[in-house]
This record gives sequence, C-alpha cells and structure tokens, in this order.
Amino acid sequence: MPLEDLIYVLDLLGTLVFAISGVIAAVEQKFDLVGAFIIGFVTALGGGTTRDLLMGATPVAWMHNLDYLLIVSLAMILCYLFYPRLSKIRRSLFIFDSIGLGLFSILGFQKALIAELDIPIALILGIVSAVFGGVIRDVLTNQVPLIFRKEIYALAALAGAVLYWLGGLLGLSAGIDAVVSISLVVLIRSLAVARGWQSPFLPLGSNSNSKED
Amino acid sequence: MPLEDLIYVLDLLGTLVFAISGVIAAVEQKFDLVGAFIIGFVTALGGGTTRDLLMGATPVAWMHNLDYLLIVSLAMILCYLFYPRLSKIRRSLFIFDSIGLGLFSILGFQKALIAELDIPIALILGIVSAVFGGVIRDVLTNQVPLIFRKEIYALAALAGAVLYWLGGLLGLSAGIDAVVSISLVVLIRSLAVARGWQSPFLPLGSNSNSKED
Amino acid sequence: MPLEDLIYVLDLLGTLVFAISGVIAAVEQKFDLVGAFIIGFVTALGGGTTRDLLMGATPVAWMHNLDYLLIVSLAMILCYLFYPRLSKIRRSLFIFDSIGLGLFSILGFQKALIAELDIPIALILGIVSAVFGGVIRDVLTNQVPLIFRKEIYALAALAGAVLYWLGGLLGLSAGIDAVVSISLVVLIRSLAVARGWQSPFLPLGSNSNSKED
Repeated sequence: MPLEDLIYVLDLLGTLVFAISGVIAAVEQKFDLVGAFIIGFVTALGGGTTRDLLMGATPVAWMHNLDYLLIVSLAMILCYLFYPRLSKIRRSLFIFDSIGLGLFSILGFQKALIAELDIPIALILGIVSAVFGGVIRDVLTNQVPLIFRKEIYALAALAGAVLYWLGGLLGLSAGIDAVVSISLVVLIRSLAVARGWQSPFLPLGSNSNSKED
Repeated sequence: MPLEDLIYVLDLLGTLVFAISGVIAAVEQKFDLVGAFIIGFVTALGGGTTRDLLMGATPVAWMHNLDYLLIVSLAMILCYLFYPRLSKIRRSLFIFDSIGLGLFSILGFQKALIAELDIPIALILGIVSAVFGGVIRDVLTNQVPLIFRKEIYALAALAGAVLYWLGGLLGLSAGIDAVVSISLVVLIRSLAVARGWQSPFLPLGSNSNSKED
Repeated sequence: MPLEDLIYVLDLLGTLVFAISGVIAAVEQKFDLVGAFIIGFVTALGGGTTRDLLMGATPVAWMHNLDYLLIVSLAMILCYLFYPRLSKIRRSLFIFDSIGLGLFSILGFQKALIAELDIPIALILGIVSAVFGGVIRDVLTNQVPLIFRKEIYALAALAGAVLYWLGGLLGLSAGIDAVVSISLVVLIRSLAVARGWQSPFLPLGSNSNSKED
C-alpha cells in the first residue's frame, strides 16, 4: 500500500473514532438524529475546519470530499447498532483515537508548513487540528473541555508534531517520520492512561483547592 | 407582492423572532445592553454567518446590509418595552420562529447549491443556517443547546430542506416549493410542540438513566 | 516615541494582560501546559481573530507576527513564576486590562473603517475585537461570559469606540483621539469597579428572580 493511501486510511479511521466519540456524547445528552449527527460531525471535522478557517483555506475540505460525510454516517450507524457495547469499549478505542490524534496533529503541522508559516505557528495549527474537534464537542455538550487536562492528551499531540518536525530536520523520509511520530503519540497516551498521568500546568498548592490534589 | 419581496419580509420576520429569543435569554442572564445586543445578534445572524464562514463567503452578508442590524435593534426595543409580556408569549411566537427555521434552512440550502456543492453538503449547510444561531446563543449563555433535543427542532429544518430539494427535482416553481416546504416545517413543529414529541437518536434503555425516560 | 510605536507597545501590553487572565483561568481549571497556553492564546487573540474571520481578513494577523506568540509565552512564564501572587493582584492588573479593552476596541473600529464598512458595523467589530477573547475564554472554561454583565465592561468598550469616532468627526488627530478615548474607557472601568456598577439591560423586576436584585 503506497504511503498516501495508508495516510488516507488512517485519516478516515481517526475520523471514524472521533465521530463515534461525538455521537456517544450526543446520545448521553439525548440529542436527536440531527443533533447526534452534528456533534459527530464537528468532533471529527471541527479541528481541521478551525485550522482551515484560520488559514483562510475555504471552502473547507469536507465540502468537496463526501468520504468524510460517509464516515460520520457510518459512525451514526455503528452507534445505532452497537451503542451500549460501543460505550463500554470506548476506552479500548483509544488506540485509534491516539492514532487519529497523532495523525491530525502531523497533517495540520504539514499543511501549515506548506503555507510557509513559521514553525511555532505550524505547531499550534497542528494541535488545533488534533484537539479542537473534541473541544467543540465538549463546548456543545456543555462540558469543560477534558482534553486540556486528561492524561496528557493535547501534550501528546504537541510531542508528535515536534518529533515529526525534528525528523524532517534530520532528513527522515516523510513516511518513516510519520510512523515514528504517531507511534510516540500512541506510546505517550498508552502510558498516560495506564498510569493515570495528569499534568496540570500549575498545581494549586498554595490555594484552597489543595486537598483535591 | 413579488416573490423576492415576500422572501425578504419573511427573512426579516424570522430574524426578528430569533433576535427576540436571544435578547430574552440575555435578560434572564442579567446581561447588560451590549451583552443583550450581542446575544440577540448572534442568535439571529449566527447561523448564516457560520454558513458563510464555512463557504468562504466573507465579508459576511450583514456587514453590507444594515437592515439586519436594525431588526436586532428593533428586537431590543420590543424587549425593553414589553419584556415580561414577550417572555410569557414567547411560545406563541413559535409560528414565526418556525417560519424562520424553515426559511433559513431553505435559503442556506439554496445558497450552497448555487455554489455548486453536493446535495448532502447543501442540506448540512441549510441546517447550520437554521439552527446554529440558537446553538451559539445557548453556548454563550452556558446552556446545553436545546434545539438538538427539544421537539424535533433541527429535524424539522432538515425535513423542510429535503422537501424543498425534492420539489425542485419535480419541477415545482421556487415560490410554490418554498411555501410548501416552510409549511411542512411549521406543521411538524406545531404537532411536535402540541404533542410534546421528543426524538432522541437513541434511548438510553440499557443504561442507568432509564428511569428518566 | 512615535505614535505607532506607542500603539504597538500598548497593544502588546493589553495582549499580555489578557493572556495572563486566560492562563489564570486555565490554572483554576487544572489545565495542562498546552491547555493553559491555548486558553491564554485565545483570550489574548480571540477577539481580533474573530473580527478578522468575519471580515475575511485571513490568514489572521498573529500567523505572520511571532511577537504575539512570544507575549503569550511570556504570560505563561509569569504565571508559572508568580501564580499565587498574580492571581491575588489580578484585579490590580485591571488598569492594563482596561487599556487593552479600549485600545482593542479602537483598533478594531479603525480596521473596519479602513475596509469601508458602515459606522454601526465598525462599532460592532470594535466591541467584538475587545471582548470576544474573554468570551471564548469563558466558553472554553464553561463559564457564563462575565463580561456581558460585570461592571460595565463591554459598554465601556462601546463608549471608547464611539468617542473615538466622534473625535475623528471633530478633526482630532488620531493620537490625541486614541488617548482621550482609551482614557474614557479606563475612567468608566475604574468608576464601575470602585462603585460596583452593574447595568443589566432589563431588571427582572416583574419576575420571580426579583429577590436577587
């Protein structure tokens, strides 16, 4: 399988898992068909859409490639058929979620580089691509965006994009570079989930909440 | 009255009712003048603005047509003069709200077709035009967006856009097609409100919340 | 110091204070490094970004000027080093916050005028520039946007932009006009904070919540 095809398959797999997490969140809020679809859609595609809006790359990509719409529809069907089970194995889907996280981060980073943006801006756009779908999902279901504090989620996306950048500097081929970087994201996420790593930017040690820590 | 004028009048009426619902939500949050105005504004114009941003159709329409601004100002004045009463008859305004819902959905759908987007994408943009104003209102006042679960709201917008599309396929004139489609939205909404129809995408039967259903 | 340099220094100072308020909010939510950075970033730059998106002025400004990124990084470092103290003196920072509020409002207003938009639209874009960063911060940390009701915050931004507009009509030089207008914003904010001014658009007198008032 050529590299581009592999990346596309991983892209669709990541989109599917992100969409499933959105539809599950919508079901838990008792949203209707359209509501569940929209939440699935923005969870899967909201990160890339935000990046494209900021870069002025409109109309955004999913308007001209129906595959993404089909993937969200597939997530709806899967949730309809297997909801209670899907909800239970949700955490086991995290391998695909982590692959999607790493891949979206790298793809966003690369897209920004092609637009000749500076490295720090490209890293930010990589993170935005990877995590803003989940942020919008949480905002629309009235939750505090968990990805900013749960088990080193956004940090893992950053680590993947940074490693991908360094790999490129070292002259790695794009394919190897991507595989290594995404593997790092999966590894960090696996360790973080297994060991319950939290990483608040600042502990609130000197404040009243100290008992919770 | 020519068709275009009728559509424009309905557009402004829908905008007015959406703006009123936004201002009322802002008053309930004790927002100040500017806050109430902004919430009224985004409720009325946020759906079309989101659609235009996604399509890259900027600067967005209300920047070049002050009528929409005047309509939001009128909503402010009406709320100032008649608040307690407006709040009470809010539900009775739902006929205009439903007309606006159907009209915004059709207008968004049509605008996407003119931009040569595929039918499924156009349907999504129709729904976005019709419901995202309310979604942003709810997000800004820290509510779960009700329109995703209350009385078949977003679903009615979808039904209207689909019927409008089918009418076009059957060769109906745009005017008749619009009237029929909007009537369907009003009918669905009226029945849904009268009978308290809810339509969660998935009941949480096998989960712990089952008592609430 | 030439006027443009002064404006740039004030712009960076306002950005810094806005970013600090975002990072503090993120620390209170126990966000991690990336989460804190993103919240600081959107608080400082979200208003101008929203304005630019609405005007179709993409890619947005901070993508091509790394100074803004450095300022947000500086806010992170300051919070890391001095968090408990910064959190305590937060209110004392309000002089810079007010300067930023007034300046961002005027800069947004002016940018809209240069794009030949009508005065009312330009005023709206001025307010959006000044307050939407804080709005997005509050949405992302799941708060009701306080700026819509606390101590005449958004109203002060409007007052500054209106005075700047009137000053321009009267033929004031841009520099004098800006200083006078920003001073008005600082004055209004100081008085409002000192005296606890609230200004709900409508008191809920005839409703059930009247006891709270």
